Amino acid sequence: MIGGMGPAATADFLARLVAGVAAGSDIDHPRVLIDSNPHVPDRNAAARGEGPSPGPVLAAMAQGLVEQGAQILAMPCNAAHGWAEAINAGVPFVSMIDAALAEALAHRPRAIGVLAVGATLALDLYGRASPVSVLAGDLAVVQPAVNAIKAGDRSDATRAALAGSAAQLVAAGAEVIIAACTEVPLLLRQADVTVPLIDSTAALARATLAAAVLTDRDR
Amino acid sequence: MIGGMGPAATADFLARLVAGVAAGSDIDHPRVLIDSNPHVPDRNAAARGEGPSPGPVLAAMAQGLVEQGAQILAMPCNAAHGWAEAINAGVPFVSMIDAALAEALAHRPRAIGVLAVGATLALDLYGRASPVSVLAGDLAVVQPAVNAIKAGDRSDATRAALAGSAAQLVAAGAEVIIAACTEVPLLLRQADVTVPLIDSTAALARATLAAAVLTDRDR
Repeated sequence: MIGGMGPAATADFLARLVAGVAAGSDIDHPRVLIDSNPHVPDRNAAARGEGPSPGPVLAAMAQGLVEQGAQILAMPCNAAHGWAEAINAGVPFVSMIDAALAEALAHRPRAIGVLAVGATLALDLYGRASPVSVLAGDLAVVQPAVNAIKAGDRSDATRAALAGSAAQLVAAGAEVIIAACTEVPLLLRQADVTVPLIDSTAALARATLAAAVLTDRDR
Repeated sequence: MIGGMGPAATADFLARLVAGVAAGSDIDHPRVLIDSNPHVPDRNAAARGEGPSPGPVLAAMAQGLVEQGAQILAMPCNAAHGWAEAINAGVPFVSMIDAALAEALAHRPRAIGVLAVGATLALDLYGRASPVSVLAGDLAVVQPAVNAIKAGDRSDATRAALAGSAAQLVAAGAEVIIAACTEVPLLLRQADVTVPLIDSTAALARATLAAAVLTDRDR
């Protein structure tokens, strides 16, 4: 796992990976190697052309994990997928964007709303991969909410702000909402949204476990 | 982090490490490298002389983490500390036994009760390190409860069984209880016990963060 963006989201992803295994005992679980590195260059600044690319650091993390034995790579950070092409470590990479989009499209929506940060929107990570139109949540609401969650905020006010942004997208025609930043599902729940809410972290955990089963079977 | 014993306990430890940092943003967190390996040889079988030693696998995991840059090692599994001497990777190792015992002794108990599995008791990991007497919880209750928790059980019945074992220890004179197996605090809470309950996972997280601050300062 190429993690640390942010650290709480990485812990959330690991918990979902563990919970996703129907285990009778420890040995039924896959081995998981994690590099939780909160010092990866800022994705939003890089997307604005105002900071260094996170690509080389992500590539080095991936290489280190593969050297330790990783056979599948996953990265629980939507925005960092803007630099996924830099991760070329010779093993399969499970895309969080593809995993979340697949779960959203299963609802056959005419339009999808995404709650995402600046880099994810600027690089159009969901829009460029989607066959249906993708509506972006108000960055002036989502970005401060994500920053607050990274600083430990789990307040009703911040959850209400994210719910309000989701409601705006639904009013504009979105029939599914993707929590397209790993901090968002730490606070926003299905009960806060009137249409299906796709948790990108949970979607990546499911896709990663599915890939792990296939890798294990092929060995 | 030398993890995976069990996987849910490793996820719990990571969540506590993250929550333990007073962070304003991602970059305030330490980098954490994790090898969550649920295939380490069984500690209880090894302590009974009925299975291979986990020592060589733990040593190899530690070496791999240090090669990736780890400057401090922690292992969220009490029983595996029976083979801590095998972990000789040239960087500080934060002992979970010492961390939990220190928190227990801060309450100045005349006796400490431990809820632990077979290996931890057979190797007397707490007793041999403690200046006050250590009473062992009924293994016929604790071991099945731990196995059930590893298989996903989060039931009130299992929590009540652990609480009953703790109550027996209190009746026998224990003035502090240590949840001395990382699965126990996944279910047993302070409200279930009438004397202070020390969570060995939380104690290790606090000790690890303290060691990380010192390492960072010395750099």
